[in-house]
Amino acid sequence: MIEPAPETPVCHHFQRAALLIGKRWNPQLVRMLLSGAVRYSDLKAGVPQISDHLLSERLKELEAEGVLVRLVTPSTPVRIEYRLTERGADLAGVIDELSAWAERWASAEVAEPAVG
Amino acid sequence: MIEPAPETPVCHHFQRAALLIGKRWNPQLVRMLLSGAVRYSDLKAGVPQISDHLLSERLKELEAEGVLVRLVTPSTPVRIEYRLTERGADLAGVIDELSAWAERWASAEVAEPAVG
Repeated sequence: MIEPAPETPVCHHFQRAALLIGKRWNPQLVRMLLSGAVRYSDLKAGVPQISDHLLSERLKELEAEGVLVRLVTPSTPVRIEYRLTERGADLAGVIDELSAWAERWASAEVAEPAVG
Repeated sequence: MIEPAPETPVCHHFQRAALLIGKRWNPQLVRMLLSGAVRYSDLKAGVPQISDHLLSERLKELEAEGVLVRLVTPSTPVRIEYRLTERGADLAGVIDELSAWAERWASAEVAEPAVG
């Protein structure tokens, strides 16, 4: 069913969230972090198509957005881990819904008739 | 809580869905259509920053993806409506979660400590 209209047509925070989650590779990276990945090499293995340069850039952006933190342990060798913040972990609902939608419509490659 | 890892690191369908929902203006357009907007002018009013060229392009892309249909009624003047398909309307869960997340974290503009 179609829900009643929200009062504001487009809210700034929604737009910002949409841009964040919509940026290429970000949903995949958040999904992997939610699944327990913490090392750069794990993230890289999950999205092998991405260049090291772009992966580092995305991780920095997600850190700047307060979605993840980069933890450096001064061991030998230095251990670097990426962990979701509370805010980042709270994206689980969005990621789950997106996953579920993709799953449901995976086989439907043609346009459907309109509803409503 | 962190969920167990899915078997595949990144599924093709998830990536496609992420790209679709992540493309600039798409979440806003789907949100407005879910809220009952059907006319081009309503959509335009909701995202006044977007150019007519880009809005038309996005609507065509969403049509090609099977998210909406463009219905032309040969009246005078011709009436054109945009309606979500079943697949498009099924994005409500994603949009709702994204909205709710944006709402919850609207005031938190700084990085939070890591969890887990």
